[in-house]
Amino acid sequence: MAEFDLLSIGNAIVDIIAQTDDAFLEREAVQKGGMTLIDTDRARQLYAAMGPAVETSGGSAGNTVAGFVSLGGTGAYVGKVSDDELGRIFAHDIRSLGVEYQTVPLAGDPPTARSMILVTPDGQRSMSTYLGACVELGPDDIDEALVAAAKVTYFEGYLWDPPLAKDAIRNAATIAHANGREVAMTLSDSFCVNRYREEFLELIRSGTVDIVFANEAEAMALYQESDLDTAIDRLGYDAKRLAAVTRGADGCIIIENAERVEVPATEVERVLDTTGAGDLFAAGFLRGYTAGLSHRDSARLGVIAAGHVIQQIGPRPMRRLSELPEVKAILGVTG
Amino acid sequence: MAEFDLLSIGNAIVDIIAQTDDAFLEREAVQKGGMTLIDTDRARQLYAAMGPAVETSGGSAGNTVAGFVSLGGTGAYVGKVSDDELGRIFAHDIRSLGVEYQTVPLAGDPPTARSMILVTPDGQRSMSTYLGACVELGPDDIDEALVAAAKVTYFEGYLWDPPLAKDAIRNAATIAHANGREVAMTLSDSFCVNRYREEFLELIRSGTVDIVFANEAEAMALYQESDLDTAIDRLGYDAKRLAAVTRGADGCIIIENAERVEVPATEVERVLDTTGAGDLFAAGFLRGYTAGLSHRDSARLGVIAAGHVIQQIGPRPMRRLSELPEVKAILGVTG
Repeated sequence: MAEFDLLSIGNAIVDIIAQTDDAFLEREAVQKGGMTLIDTDRARQLYAAMGPAVETSGGSAGNTVAGFVSLGGTGAYVGKVSDDELGRIFAHDIRSLGVEYQTVPLAGDPPTARSMILVTPDGQRSMSTYLGACVELGPDDIDEALVAAAKVTYFEGYLWDPPLAKDAIRNAATIAHANGREVAMTLSDSFCVNRYREEFLELIRSGTVDIVFANEAEAMALYQESDLDTAIDRLGYDAKRLAAVTRGADGCIIIENAERVEVPATEVERVLDTTGAGDLFAAGFLRGYTAGLSHRDSARLGVIAAGHVIQQIGPRPMRRLSELPEVKAILGVTG
Repeated sequence: MAEFDLLSIGNAIVDIIAQTDDAFLEREAVQKGGMTLIDTDRARQLYAAMGPAVETSGGSAGNTVAGFVSLGGTGAYVGKVSDDELGRIFAHDIRSLGVEYQTVPLAGDPPTARSMILVTPDGQRSMSTYLGACVELGPDDIDEALVAAAKVTYFEGYLWDPPLAKDAIRNAATIAHANGREVAMTLSDSFCVNRYREEFLELIRSGTVDIVFANEAEAMALYQESDLDTAIDRLGYDAKRLAAVTRGADGCIIIENAERVEVPATEVERVLDTTGAGDLFAAGFLRGYTAGLSHRDSARLGVIAAGHVIQQIGPRPMRRLSELPEVKAILGVTG
C-alpha cells in the first residue's frame, strides 16, 4: 500500500444538533460542555424532548480526518456504523471527502451511533451520545497494511468507552511502531479522562502513544492537578514525542520535552457552535506535522482550522480549508 | 376541535444539503435553480457523486408551517413519511416546534422522501427529489375536523406530482369552504407550473384556491407570458382573494383585484442558501394574514422571514422568528 498521511480511528457517530438554552440543559440534567454516554431509553426520551435538529456526520476522529483531507492531506478512517440509513449517511460523507473508509458495517442492531448535541447561545455544546454499533469495533477491523502505510495513526480516548476498541488500538500501535510510524491520541474529554486516567497515563508513559492532544481541563484531569502550568509540564515530560494543549480563546501550547511553543487563537467574529474545535485543531496540527512543518506553523494550521469550524453549525468544515489564503500561505501553496 | 391558524399540506421530505460549484451541476446535468424529480437509481448515483452533506427536515409546505409557528402562529401539517429513520427525524423536527402532525407513516417501502439540494457559491439551490413515501399520500390522510378548524388550508403545487394527493387537496378545499375557511396554494416551481398549468389555472379560476403564492418565473409560466407585469395583473385578476408574487431581492407584490401593494426585501448581509425563501415568505405573509394584519404588514413579515432563512444553511429558521425585534414590532408584541 502506498504511504499516506493520517489514519484516524474513532467512534463513528452521526450528530443530531439542536439549538437550546441553559434552562433546557438544567431541566433535562444534561452536563454542560461535556459528553455523556446514554442508553436507548434515554436517547429516545431526550430526542423527544429536544427541539428541531440538523443531522451531520460527526465523531471526534472522523471530524479530524475530515478536516485533515480538507486541508489537503491524505487520510483513512476506521469506525463502525450499522447497515442503516444513518450509517450510509456517515459512510457517504466521509468517503465523498476523499477519505479511505472500508470498515465493514454491522448487519442489523444496534443501529448507527448518534450524539445529541445541544448548542447554547454562548456557542458551547453539550453532548449525549448513544454508542450503538460502535460497541462492535474490534481488532478485526484494523487492516495491518493500512496502519503500516500511515505516517501517523491517530485515535480518540473515547474509544475506551466501547469494550473491544482498546484492543484494536493497542494492536494498531504495535503495527505502527514496528513500521517506524508514529501514534497520536486525543484525551477527548475531561470526564473521559476521569474514567480511564490510569490507562491513558500508561499509554503515554509506555510510549504506546507518541503525540498527545489535550485541552486544559483534560490535562489537569489526567494529573489530578489544579495548576494548569504544572499539568502541561508533566504532559510534556511524559509524552514521548510531543504534547499539544489547546486553550480555547487563548490559543495553544506545543510542548516538546521542556520546550514550549505558544500560538494565539485566530480572531473569531462570532462563535456559533464549538462542536469540533478540538478535532479540527488536531487536524490542522497533524497536517503541518506530517508535511514536515515546524511546530509553530503546524499549530497555526490547528488554530486556523479550529477557528473556522466554530463559526459554523456542525463539526466538519463546509468549505475546503486548503482554499483559505492563510492556509495556503503556511503550506507554501501558490494560487 | 379548537380553531387554529394554518393547516399545511405537502410532500414530507428530508433535505440532504451539500455545497457544490457550477461545474458539478453541469457535469451531473442538474437543472440549476429548479426542482427535478428523480428515481431510486438516479438518487443513488447522484448521492454517491455529491460531497458531504447536512440533513434537515424540509418539504416546501413543511418549511412554511415550521416558519409559521416559529412566528408565533398555531399550525398543523399533513404529509407522508415512511416508518424509517428519516421519517422519524422528519416527525420529530416538525412536532418539536409545536406543529400538530398525525399523518400515519407508511409501513415499509418506499422509504421517506429525500431531496438532494446542491447549493452553489451564489447561494442558489438546485434540488433533485426522490418522492419515496410521498406517493402514498391520499384522501384518507385528510382529517375533516382538522381542515374545518383551520383558518387557512395551504398546500404546495408540488402535490400534483404524486398520484393521489390532488384528490386529497380537492376534498380538503371542499371541506374548508363548507366551513367558511380559506384555501391557499403556492405554485412551487416554474417547472412544476409547466407540468400542471391547466390544472393550476382551473384551481385558481374556479375558486378552489383563494390565495395564490408565486414567484416571478412561476407567474409568467402560469400564463405563458413573458411580460412580468401582465402576468401579475392576470394572476391578481384570477385569484379569488389575493395573489402574492415574490421577486427575490426586489421584494414582493401583493395583488387584490387590481390593487397592488409593493414591499421591498429586507437588507441581507450575505446569502448563504436560498432554500426555503419562498416557503418562509408564505409563512410570514400568512402569519400576518391570519392575525388580521394589513397586506403590507403581512408582506413585511414575509420578507423578514425569507430574508432570515437565506442567511443560514437549511430551509427552516434555526431560531424563533417571533423573538426578532422587527417581528415583534409588526405583530404588536412587547417584550
